[in-house]
Amino acid sequence: MTTAAAYAATSADGPLTKTTIERRALGPRDVLIEIEYAGICHSDIHAARNEWGGTKYPLVPGHEIVGIVAAVGSGVSAHAVGDRVGVGCFVDSCGDCDPCRTGYEQHCTERVTGTYNSVGRDGLVTQGGYSTHIVVTEHFVLKIPEGLDPAAAAPLLCAGITLYSPLKRWNAGPGTKVAIIGMGGLGHVGVKIAAALGAEVTVLSHSLSKKDDGLRFGATEYVATTDPQALKSLRGRFDLILNTVSVNLDMDRYLSLLRLHGTLVELGLPENPLTLRAFSLGVNDRAIAGSNVGGIAQTQEMLDFCAGKGIGAEIELISADRINEAYDRVVASDVRYRFVIDASTF
Amino acid sequence: MTTAAAYAATSADGPLTKTTIERRALGPRDVLIEIEYAGICHSDIHAARNEWGGTKYPLVPGHEIVGIVAAVGSGVSAHAVGDRVGVGCFVDSCGDCDPCRTGYEQHCTERVTGTYNSVGRDGLVTQGGYSTHIVVTEHFVLKIPEGLDPAAAAPLLCAGITLYSPLKRWNAGPGTKVAIIGMGGLGHVGVKIAAALGAEVTVLSHSLSKKDDGLRFGATEYVATTDPQALKSLRGRFDLILNTVSVNLDMDRYLSLLRLHGTLVELGLPENPLTLRAFSLGVNDRAIAGSNVGGIAQTQEMLDFCAGKGIGAEIELISADRINEAYDRVVASDVRYRFVIDASTF
Repeated sequence: MTTAAAYAATSADGPLTKTTIERRALGPRDVLIEIEYAGICHSDIHAARNEWGGTKYPLVPGHEIVGIVAAVGSGVSAHAVGDRVGVGCFVDSCGDCDPCRTGYEQHCTERVTGTYNSVGRDGLVTQGGYSTHIVVTEHFVLKIPEGLDPAAAAPLLCAGITLYSPLKRWNAGPGTKVAIIGMGGLGHVGVKIAAALGAEVTVLSHSLSKKDDGLRFGATEYVATTDPQALKSLRGRFDLILNTVSVNLDMDRYLSLLRLHGTLVELGLPENPLTLRAFSLGVNDRAIAGSNVGGIAQTQEMLDFCAGKGIGAEIELISADRINEAYDRVVASDVRYRFVIDASTF
Repeated sequence: MTTAAAYAATSADGPLTKTTIERRALGPRDVLIEIEYAGICHSDIHAARNEWGGTKYPLVPGHEIVGIVAAVGSGVSAHAVGDRVGVGCFVDSCGDCDPCRTGYEQHCTERVTGTYNSVGRDGLVTQGGYSTHIVVTEHFVLKIPEGLDPAAAAPLLCAGITLYSPLKRWNAGPGTKVAIIGMGGLGHVGVKIAAALGAEVTVLSHSLSKKDDGLRFGATEYVATTDPQALKSLRGRFDLILNTVSVNLDMDRYLSLLRLHGTLVELGLPENPLTLRAFSLGVNDRAIAGSNVGGIAQTQEMLDFCAGKGIGAEIELISADRINEAYDRVVASDVRYRFVIDASTF
């Protein structure tokens, strides 16, 4: 067992507070990671505040984790002490079902084990990355390539793969036109990755306040969605729209921007159901699709791609005692673009 | 000009009545067809009764047309007098835009010309197939292969291609599991085509009243959707679900039946918007898509496929004076499975 410092939520409406937790003793396939950095994802806040229901307190959030291997189990071959590694949104799966065997562990038919607030195979509730240490089965540990800034790499483990996976699935690249709705923690990484893949990228944002950043990240166009004429001029334009916004939008309006066989991928999880007219799908044979992070092999591919292209998240590094302040600022969209906790401050 | 007998709706709430209409004089690329059979599609009824708005009266419905070439313009090479031919849901398009040039004339960016209730390039409103004759530009005239019963082939021009196109786009075939919601005019042709493509076909119907027919058409399973346990047992099962029902369904319930990367294709056009939870798409990375008939080349491919497999619609052949009675029976779902008008009775 390893005793680790951590920050935990103990109720839906209280602040996160400092605590200690026990990490399991190393099994033969386990990796003990000394955490360096943990990104703050909006999902962490939803879970801490029980906004999706089902939160088990105390809860240590965090699924954008980068650190250094401190010890390995006797059967571990993929990682060695001293390696820089990462952990994303899940830490276990059955390994045997069709999705697991084809690289979609996140869709394990026996239920994937989330990095926090999930019941692991040992029956214990998992605890996430706002902590000094974590123990994870080797298959779910990613290699952080040389050349990636480790703090800026942390958000890639969730935000990065969440955007990379649909961009790859729908073949974003030279000759394709991609729109990204919202340029926050998810969206800004999506702009960088889509542009690096060679796609022509348009940002659809409620205002032009981040336009300069968007163009710097690789977008060629930045449109304010509050301007109805500007949106109308984009009708039938895009092959792929990635919606990173978690408030309910007028889906028919955004679907109308898709060209023949275009797809809108819903990455935010708005509180209310989506409503859309069947007609909006029939015109141009459009689709609306879901996409839930990505499998382990694809996450590694994404990290290697980002290292090769020099892509990291834009981050604001904070000490652990500023987590609660950061939460309020994320909810107020007051961050450019991702908070990352410096785990040396626990 | 050719004077043709026809049945037309003259108001939203009156019956269709017998009339005569003028078909345009043959241009160099035109084909004059003496109509033998015209299927009755539920869309005809929506248009005749102005249920979608925008109906221009008098209206001659009908976009499932089979007949014999009676004359051709001087520049026509694809069809000859005496050939058996068909006409589906559209009769013209620009021919020059990306969709037109890639075989998706129905999605012409300059607007496709519908077979009826559409304004043609000559500025006149098009009139459909409940008639003795029609004049259509050769590119939009299909060949009805030898071996297809011409009356049973008529519904293939709309119902057939509407089901064939998504089955092909989503690669239905050996090893794939397809569900078809609703076994009416569209659905029953879908069962036949999906089974002939080699897919494993399940019908999801509100009752088991057509079960024997469904199994005869090629389904291996026939499930009553009123049985919650039966539906639950199908969770995560299907690669592709084709929804042919035009009433609003509980989309989350049907989406839950899709396996990893499965797609639900919405072919009915329900009156109210679809509502679904984003979560239903994120689980298994599912999609909901639209599919609007199919292009000319694919419609020909479908007719050739059906001829090779001996597939036609199941029809009830009626005389023209029974059109109004047939409309009421279609609305009451009292037809197995498609009415076809014998044009010799006009």
